[in-house]
Amino acid sequence: MDFSVAEKTQELVRRAHDFVTAQAQPLERRMGDWRSLEPVLREVRGKAKALGLWTPQRSLPLSEFALVSEELGRSPLGHYCVNCQAPDVGNMELLELAGTKEQKKKWLDPLAAGEIRSCFSMTEPERPGSNPTWMETRAVLEGGRWTLDGHKWFSTAADGARFAVVMAVTDPDAPPHLRASMIIVPTDTPGYTLVRNIPVMGEAGSGWASHGEIRYQKCVVPEENLLGGRGAGFALAQERLGPGRIHHCMRWIGISERALELICSYSVSREMSPNKPLALKQTVQEWIAESRAAIDAARLLVLHAAWKMEREGQKAARVEISTIKFFVAGVLQRVLDRAIQAHGALGLTDETPLAFWYRHERAGRIYDGPDEVHKLVVARQILRKHGVELK
Amino acid sequence: MDFSVAEKTQELVRRAHDFVTAQAQPLERRMGDWRSLEPVLREVRGKAKALGLWTPQRSLPLSEFALVSEELGRSPLGHYCVNCQAPDVGNMELLELAGTKEQKKKWLDPLAAGEIRSCFSMTEPERPGSNPTWMETRAVLEGGRWTLDGHKWFSTAADGARFAVVMAVTDPDAPPHLRASMIIVPTDTPGYTLVRNIPVMGEAGSGWASHGEIRYQKCVVPEENLLGGRGAGFALAQERLGPGRIHHCMRWIGISERALELICSYSVSREMSPNKPLALKQTVQEWIAESRAAIDAARLLVLHAAWKMEREGQKAARVEISTIKFFVAGVLQRVLDRAIQAHGALGLTDETPLAFWYRHERAGRIYDGPDEVHKLVVARQILRKHGVELK
Amino acid sequence: MDFSVAEKTQELVRRAHDFVTAQAQPLERRMGDWRSLEPVLREVRGKAKALGLWTPQRSLPLSEFALVSEELGRSPLGHYCVNCQAPDVGNMELLELAGTKEQKKKWLDPLAAGEIRSCFSMTEPERPGSNPTWMETRAVLEGGRWTLDGHKWFSTAADGARFAVVMAVTDPDAPPHLRASMIIVPTDTPGYTLVRNIPVMGEAGSGWASHGEIRYQKCVVPEENLLGGRGAGFALAQERLGPGRIHHCMRWIGISERALELICSYSVSREMSPNKPLALKQTVQEWIAESRAAIDAARLLVLHAAWKMEREGQKAARVEISTIKFFVAGVLQRVLDRAIQAHGALGLTDETPLAFWYRHERAGRIYDGPDEVHKLVVARQILRKHGVELK
Amino acid sequence: MDFSVAEKTQELVRRAHDFVTAQAQPLERRMGDWRSLEPVLREVRGKAKALGLWTPQRSLPLSEFALVSEELGRSPLGHYCVNCQAPDVGNMELLELAGTKEQKKKWLDPLAAGEIRSCFSMTEPERPGSNPTWMETRAVLEGGRWTLDGHKWFSTAADGARFAVVMAVTDPDAPPHLRASMIIVPTDTPGYTLVRNIPVMGEAGSGWASHGEIRYQKCVVPEENLLGGRGAGFALAQERLGPGRIHHCMRWIGISERALELICSYSVSREMSPNKPLALKQTVQEWIAESRAAIDAARLLVLHAAWKMEREGQKAARVEISTIKFFVAGVLQRVLDRAIQAHGALGLTDETPLAFWYRHERAGRIYDGPDEVHKLVVARQILRKHGVELK
Repeated sequence: MDFSVAEKTQELVRRAHDFVTAQAQPLERRMGDWRSLEPVLREVRGKAKALGLWTPQRSLPLSEFALVSEELGRSPLGHYCVNCQAPDVGNMELLELAGTKEQKKKWLDPLAAGEIRSCFSMTEPERPGSNPTWMETRAVLEGGRWTLDGHKWFSTAADGARFAVVMAVTDPDAPPHLRASMIIVPTDTPGYTLVRNIPVMGEAGSGWASHGEIRYQKCVVPEENLLGGRGAGFALAQERLGPGRIHHCMRWIGISERALELICSYSVSREMSPNKPLALKQTVQEWIAESRAAIDAARLLVLHAAWKMEREGQKAARVEISTIKFFVAGVLQRVLDRAIQAHGALGLTDETPLAFWYRHERAGRIYDGPDEVHKLVVARQILRKHGVELK
Repeated sequence: MDFSVAEKTQELVRRAHDFVTAQAQPLERRMGDWRSLEPVLREVRGKAKALGLWTPQRSLPLSEFALVSEELGRSPLGHYCVNCQAPDVGNMELLELAGTKEQKKKWLDPLAAGEIRSCFSMTEPERPGSNPTWMETRAVLEGGRWTLDGHKWFSTAADGARFAVVMAVTDPDAPPHLRASMIIVPTDTPGYTLVRNIPVMGEAGSGWASHGEIRYQKCVVPEENLLGGRGAGFALAQERLGPGRIHHCMRWIGISERALELICSYSVSREMSPNKPLALKQTVQEWIAESRAAIDAARLLVLHAAWKMEREGQKAARVEISTIKFFVAGVLQRVLDRAIQAHGALGLTDETPLAFWYRHERAGRIYDGPDEVHKLVVARQILRKHGVELK
Repeated sequence: MDFSVAEKTQELVRRAHDFVTAQAQPLERRMGDWRSLEPVLREVRGKAKALGLWTPQRSLPLSEFALVSEELGRSPLGHYCVNCQAPDVGNMELLELAGTKEQKKKWLDPLAAGEIRSCFSMTEPERPGSNPTWMETRAVLEGGRWTLDGHKWFSTAADGARFAVVMAVTDPDAPPHLRASMIIVPTDTPGYTLVRNIPVMGEAGSGWASHGEIRYQKCVVPEENLLGGRGAGFALAQERLGPGRIHHCMRWIGISERALELICSYSVSREMSPNKPLALKQTVQEWIAESRAAIDAARLLVLHAAWKMEREGQKAARVEISTIKFFVAGVLQRVLDRAIQAHGALGLTDETPLAFWYRHERAGRIYDGPDEVHKLVVARQILRKHGVELK
Repeated sequence: MDFSVAEKTQELVRRAHDFVTAQAQPLERRMGDWRSLEPVLREVRGKAKALGLWTPQRSLPLSEFALVSEELGRSPLGHYCVNCQAPDVGNMELLELAGTKEQKKKWLDPLAAGEIRSCFSMTEPERPGSNPTWMETRAVLEGGRWTLDGHKWFSTAADGARFAVVMAVTDPDAPPHLRASMIIVPTDTPGYTLVRNIPVMGEAGSGWASHGEIRYQKCVVPEENLLGGRGAGFALAQERLGPGRIHHCMRWIGISERALELICSYSVSREMSPNKPLALKQTVQEWIAESRAAIDAARLLVLHAAWKMEREGQKAARVEISTIKFFVAGVLQRVLDRAIQAHGALGLTDETPLAFWYRHERAGRIYDGPDEVHKLVVARQILRKHGVELK
């Protein structure tokens, strides 16, 4: 094995690091007010373009992008600033992968240029996200048009999105994994209603920093808005989620690194009594060491998973992808918890990004498959080799 | 040992339970908007009085109040509805214990009647709360008046408080534990400024549900506003914190019980696939069992600590009090974490109180002494018997 | 609630404490050689009788015996020295409860006098102990005689036992919980073979300190050796296990207390560098505090379970009994682990009893129902109230 | 990064795997009786030579040897069978690195040939191993001879060793890290006494599988038995421990992999009720998934540390080496604990190697620096960059 990183990649990573530090971090406390922040971010995005950091996921191999993604993760705004933020990044991948020429022109190009935003509308309040084949939203094709009816939530960034990629059952009698399709629904379509931004951890948020509840009521779009094949929804969602999990995990590692740095910088400066900095406490030292170990382990796991995905494809890397999903989410939660404890009352305030991450990244153990589902996936693959097939 | 609870107390506990369920829980989602909520709560408080539930801490022995406090804890508004909410409950105790006749008349009576609110102003941003003898706020006595200068934060409920009990150094050259005194400062005193409600976990909050940052700048109050003896601040604070920790711990147990009930009720009704409720998952069953065990253990520890405090005093129960502080805070955090995981995306929203508690009760491992300090207290007492004196 | 302990009980507990310290602890390192130790223990048992400590479980209410049991647990020999050691203590209970007058005279009296030993023969290598209704050993009644055939292991203390209480299927077509019966089999019965003492954690042990593998091959005993009713085996086993779990748990608490004391006494005397005892390390202090909290919590849980069992019976206390089984076993394992870590290399040797307990009490999370089964029991009872019946 | 392993190395790893499975595993239950096992192992060692597996550490780069070491670790006898077992492997490294031509001829050659065994005599019962500069054993040079006096224990494999490498203070007035030297002491030197094999976790063991207590009493050896420079003992010990920690960690990963396989193979075959294998339990599935994740993370961390050591030297890899020491030891303990729990009573017996590892690998968190010391090392390096120097 060769753990070295090409000098060229290292340089790019440093550039991303400096960009995030200089451009994204100073703005992160303004996330609560998206309306006022968006124009500022437009300028910052311009700088990203100038620095060659724009949509890095589109030009870099996954394993190199992963390293950049870690750096972007050091600020809640990092990914947005270079236009590789969820859910747009996943929608770009979908359009790239399965879009027609017209769809690409109409939706992918402005998305990649950062001119519009989008959302991904899959999760339903009435059905468990951990069972993606059980879904209530329906799309019926008649006369060259799809009519959608359904109820979705946790459609991240729906507020301000130009279109939604909607997962809907189109073939209710097909085998479970072939029932759903993806359909592009412009948000100005009659019958599309953004009911509200859901208050999540006390914050409804706004703009990109929000999660929408959406109703589709006799919502009609042209037949050609089908994205990918009919019945291919589930397969496409899986395809979308694979790299998405690498993205999330590397982002979490970036968060964890920043949290660890905050523990260090705060504990050397905060005095418990005159000239006795917090860093002299053995407990704080153990937090630092355990965080260091866990983050390094997490990064190697993710980079290995990305490397395997690149070489052997998503299916071959199924165990690795599920492994990192629950492993890294757990590391992140523990590091953040230690960082808050190290900061005391300050850690609870919004003076650092720790409290933001503490509450909003709790979702990491739930979305894109909760820990329990990913553990089942890992165990299933392993036990299969021992002759037992888990449902 | 006799673990039975007097029938009369059981009846009171049931009454508190029903009151919280019927009156407090329906209002808890409105906490974010204190202005509109306060008048409604005034009515609810009237009902509490009618039901004989008003300021139960003043009439009941600590060990009985503890059981009532658990019930009140089942809603974030429970304690407020019967006027035994922090920080007023602690200030009432202080005034009762150390107040002059005039102070009681002027401050305690309206506080106990629920006509005014108060705050407790001790923690400073520049100094570690875990070292309460190291404090920058000064009060100088001259010509029969105290002049206060200093900077405080996390003065809970300062927004709307009629007065603050301020901890200030009055005798900087005395031994560390005799340097500070408590002084009552009406909030309309010139030189008193509520700078802001600190954004905590993303929410600045308002009214009672907030934490204030306060500046005291040449803030002058009469000499008779000294509460308790000069130099007695630290001792009084300790006195205040003892029962306070019982209150907090029982409140946390109430929260934990409600969270466990939510796990149960949700997991029996949420179907993972048709007719397969979540409750059939072994992992959920283990969460239930581990939560049951931990909560029951926590409750017995707290009731025992209260019983010992009642019989032998706070000093004799020092190990027990510090033990419950970190033990119960840990139980609460784990139970809430499991409850959120069990609820999936729903657990992140404000549809249940879980997300509120998840973010705001993280503070429980920090305020009134972080875990690490309480563990030191316990170890110190134990190791003393083995001949080693820890600093 | 009244957590006080009657002065009389306190005195008895102190007596047990002093007895164990003076008589049992000095012998504990000789446990590996039962042959040479047994005569010495006979004398010690004489002293126990003289001190009024003999078979305390027979004269004391469960909740008082529990406190004595904790003291006995401070040495691996404590319970043996006063003749309330497993498995004899359980067999005495069975005989008391279900034995005929003749059975009591023949087996209970000499057992209670400490003249003979016995074993309990239930677990089978081929069948999971966690499913006690699935069992291969058969007993057939014909001509006034039971003929037993089967294979058992983990029959603790079979080596040297005068008789075994054997659990065998007598009615294979009855409902699962009514299939098995208990039958007394003298160990000199033809067809009874103690195959070996099973090497457990590297030690086959001998005498009382061993676990036997036994074969029953056309092993014939008189009809009157049936203990309790035909088909009552499972019910009796449950009856036996209830108080047995209280016994085990209190013993574990005694072990935990001794381990905690060893942490303290070692850490104040062991110097890491000149004049810097190990006790100055914050990590050791945290081990002490966390152990103190966990042990106190465990004790209260067990005493409460015993109190409830006494007042309301085993069935009513089912949740409490299962709760303590897994909770206390977990506390014990963590405390022992910390104690070994605190002792460094010394903790791995047999200079302290820690290493013995570390390896042999690992079984505590497995025997009498593994953690996972007890958690299921707790969850089942709780979820039943929410309308879901777990298998 | 390139995570691929050269085909040649893969082939070697497979060969080692098959060798361990076929030759070492069948013998592992005989480890308790070294006298009878040693001749058999001699034959097996011959096969290792024939297969090109002999002393692989001497011919392979560390990062490749690491992969072989994992395979060897799958049996407690694996490393011994190819002559890269501790402590001989470390002593070979020392002699290679610092030995004179004569020393190499006399001690290294027969050691490398597997003709003799050796031990490493550093730890002292009266002094903490975690402070290696504080040591009581003295060696005085006079008239061309070293006279040693001291008391050591945990000299692994002293029983049967031809010589000991002894760490002794030769220059008590030098700076702490320059006080000690290494001296080769043949075990037949007068004044050298192997007092006993220390009972560790109940087993004194014998031969290679033992830990000796040694007294040096006016033990005289020639001046040329000094190994490396005078005062270089500490530096050499550090040099020895670096690769040693890679060896141990990869061995632990091998153990963990075998334990995980045992969980899988047992859980698919053990039925809880007819046709319901244990593997259907979600808890077991979670153990499998969590073990898979932790072991994979551990392996990557260790391979990365080995890679860095190879390229940048031990000093540069100090954080990485200390990180893996405590991280992997923790993974191992958790995986073994789960494996035992999955096996129930069987896991406690010596029918599988789990119980052996459970008790004897508990030492892994203690020897070569306890967890706490390695965490301090990591924190010290990190905090240094933030401007605080920890002692």
